[in-house]
Amino acid sequence: MPSTMPTSDRPNLAETDRAPATVSGQFLDEIDKTLTVRLAILGCGNVGGALINILNRQKADIAARTGISFEIIGVAVSDLDRERNVDISPSLFTMDAKSLVTRDDVDVVVEVMGGLDPARALVEMALNASKPVVTGNKALLAVAGSQLAELAGSHGVDLLYEAAVASAIPVIRVVRESLAGERIKRIMGILNGTTNFILTRMDEEGSDYGAALIEAQELGLAERDPAADVEGFDAASKAAILAGLAFGCEVLGADVYREGITNVRAVDVAFANRLGYVIKLLAIAEIVDGGPDISVRVHPAMVPRSHPLASVRGAFNAVFVEGVACGELMLYGRGAGGDAAASAVLGDLVDVAHNLVAGTCASVPRQLERNIFEHFDLSSAFYLSLDVADRPGVLAAVAQVFGNHGVSIRVMEQVGLGKDARLIFLTHRAREGDVQDTIEELGHLQAVDNVGGLLRVIDFEPS
Amino acid sequence: MPSTMPTSDRPNLAETDRAPATVSGQFLDEIDKTLTVRLAILGCGNVGGALINILNRQKADIAARTGISFEIIGVAVSDLDRERNVDISPSLFTMDAKSLVTRDDVDVVVEVMGGLDPARALVEMALNASKPVVTGNKALLAVAGSQLAELAGSHGVDLLYEAAVASAIPVIRVVRESLAGERIKRIMGILNGTTNFILTRMDEEGSDYGAALIEAQELGLAERDPAADVEGFDAASKAAILAGLAFGCEVLGADVYREGITNVRAVDVAFANRLGYVIKLLAIAEIVDGGPDISVRVHPAMVPRSHPLASVRGAFNAVFVEGVACGELMLYGRGAGGDAAASAVLGDLVDVAHNLVAGTCASVPRQLERNIFEHFDLSSAFYLSLDVADRPGVLAAVAQVFGNHGVSIRVMEQVGLGKDARLIFLTHRAREGDVQDTIEELGHLQAVDNVGGLLRVIDFEPS
Repeated sequence: MPSTMPTSDRPNLAETDRAPATVSGQFLDEIDKTLTVRLAILGCGNVGGALINILNRQKADIAARTGISFEIIGVAVSDLDRERNVDISPSLFTMDAKSLVTRDDVDVVVEVMGGLDPARALVEMALNASKPVVTGNKALLAVAGSQLAELAGSHGVDLLYEAAVASAIPVIRVVRESLAGERIKRIMGILNGTTNFILTRMDEEGSDYGAALIEAQELGLAERDPAADVEGFDAASKAAILAGLAFGCEVLGADVYREGITNVRAVDVAFANRLGYVIKLLAIAEIVDGGPDISVRVHPAMVPRSHPLASVRGAFNAVFVEGVACGELMLYGRGAGGDAAASAVLGDLVDVAHNLVAGTCASVPRQLERNIFEHFDLSSAFYLSLDVADRPGVLAAVAQVFGNHGVSIRVMEQVGLGKDARLIFLTHRAREGDVQDTIEELGHLQAVDNVGGLLRVIDFEPS
Repeated sequence: MPSTMPTSDRPNLAETDRAPATVSGQFLDEIDKTLTVRLAILGCGNVGGALINILNRQKADIAARTGISFEIIGVAVSDLDRERNVDISPSLFTMDAKSLVTRDDVDVVVEVMGGLDPARALVEMALNASKPVVTGNKALLAVAGSQLAELAGSHGVDLLYEAAVASAIPVIRVVRESLAGERIKRIMGILNGTTNFILTRMDEEGSDYGAALIEAQELGLAERDPAADVEGFDAASKAAILAGLAFGCEVLGADVYREGITNVRAVDVAFANRLGYVIKLLAIAEIVDGGPDISVRVHPAMVPRSHPLASVRGAFNAVFVEGVACGELMLYGRGAGGDAAASAVLGDLVDVAHNLVAGTCASVPRQLERNIFEHFDLSSAFYLSLDVADRPGVLAAVAQVFGNHGVSIRVMEQVGLGKDARLIFLTHRAREGDVQDTIEELGHLQAVDNVGGLLRVIDFEPS
């Protein structure tokens, strides 16, 4: 149960009886009061700057719609001298984040600095001072989400984090609230815009991975060191947060099985395309064999063109949820950008403010005991390519190895002729461990030069 | 501000200290208590029956996750003798809905009977008795949503209605909560599964309207009298609810400009297809010229194939939101079916239950003063087809009429030859009133046999 705390015990909220000016409308009831909620913002980068500008620009609108007037009373930064494109008095900047967080006149702390240190300590300080926290820090939540949620709960204050997963797409709220009573079977997400941009270029332009990465870097969509994105670490953090929320258990980023996209080749993309698939980096969290155990993983996969996730192009994100009663749901939108993340933070802020007024906090799903399933024991169809010597008997030898491990072949195609022959396989549904054993044994065949391009294939029957 | 009411003043909630049995997990904290929330369900049709079965099937799961145990203490029906496929004691059925609604031991009333009478009176009785109401009744909300919301507010109880628009797709919660601080520019929805199924068949199979309608009727996707769906009344009710919520003003179903799909011809679908468009029945609510006025309308429109709404096929629904900060968001899923609607009701029930425990209710956006803009003054590009006599000078005469009204032609194509010639036009952006005037004048030209197939064209630049 959320703890309840009467409003009168919260001296921090400054009630005003001035009706605010409005831009796009007027109060019907002029005697409605506006409540001022005072914010400490930690960080003034891409997201923090956008948030400050939106709060300024839409202040009157927000007050007219929600009855809440947000007032920024301090912004913690690491460098007072940096030029910033934000519309705020310089006197509000401070390098003393610790003092800001615990100031008596701060009602809510917004953490948009990112990283673990000092973000974790500051969030803990805020919660220990019974101040609600809104954060977009996926790295922090993937390491310490459960402890922080517990700390927030013990103080009866909110810890909200819509911006941490898929930015403006309201997936956290939908999973936490709309689907609170739903029996969720599986969540599949395209949660990293950089890799989806790269894979989209490879699919649509036939680019190879390296060229598409350079293009993404030139457009500012990929970092100079792209590992966090292309190796799947970013998506794994988000998968951990989503899985923990959807299935009510602690999942750390490090618990998530992870493969990136660096081994996806143009030839695999072309072959997938020809068979009616598109390759996407998916974050998947699902109940295994009816539960209670779950699987949480990030890897490239072949998605049927008819699947709604297949049409998510470029830097967009999407989350596809399958539930027993709700059926299939998909949420789609911009997964990155300061404004989109700030929009998510703002939604959380309105929620926190209403909860402060009501003296309550958002309900958090209870924790259940679940184990995280080893991916070796999962089953799916697989795509696999082999570079082989083109001589009689090779296919028979290869097929024999699949058979040895009980892996059944659904489609085989030989591409190229002569020395450079390549065999491409789609298997029927098979246990991953058996497929891995098949690959290992294939690697020992003299006629096999290279085993590459292992991809899982997503099942889907369009309605 | 939501009113606050201490939990202790609510004697209706029965707290138990029995830990419930769990199906898919165990409590980590065995001393957590489960709170029983007692439901009166009005109606046991498609949605009511599904809800009862889900509440039975998932009772332990829901309690384990949320701490709430839902107990059905009465189900109001209009016929006690009807055979029903629901797993509940027959003794819980009653034909005396009024007595059920006001019973002291009812914590929450679920209205899933549909229609205005007696649903409206029963919902009012429940709210007047300070009982929260969860409803999926779009017809009721499109007529009396504002009054009912005000009544709920005056009693400090929830009136939630996620199931009323797009069923399991959590669009109501997202607009009310996630986007509470967002400056929403436009919402476009495919909100009626029947018409989307018909238009999908026309697009994919080349069916004409009549054949596609019969197919929908045979599959149980369209009523014998399909007017509510195909004439756009159903979508208009949902558009009114969404618009009122998104823009904070009262919009009645009758305020919504409405055109159905009965005049969409196979030839229009084929031409749209060739130009890279698909025809969809859209519900559109948008700010006009920066506000405060809005436009709310339902009509078929040509949607570019690259737009996310274009790939919403068959009986699925989707809602596309454009906001200043959040950018483009789309929510997609099943828009119909008992289970999907029951899933939405269940999400609302968990919310209501948490709010009861906390002694609060969901925040409702304040009302702003806005006018609903006349559609004649809106601008868009238009598609238009004319059946004309094929003789020299006709095109010049037709083009002259467009010019008379300041409507500029972007594409013209002549289809067929001889007596049955048809001219097809795409205009540049033009004021609708000017296009209507053009059509009227064209109708007076002797060479024009028929003016048909007027469709608005949706602007979209894919990212």
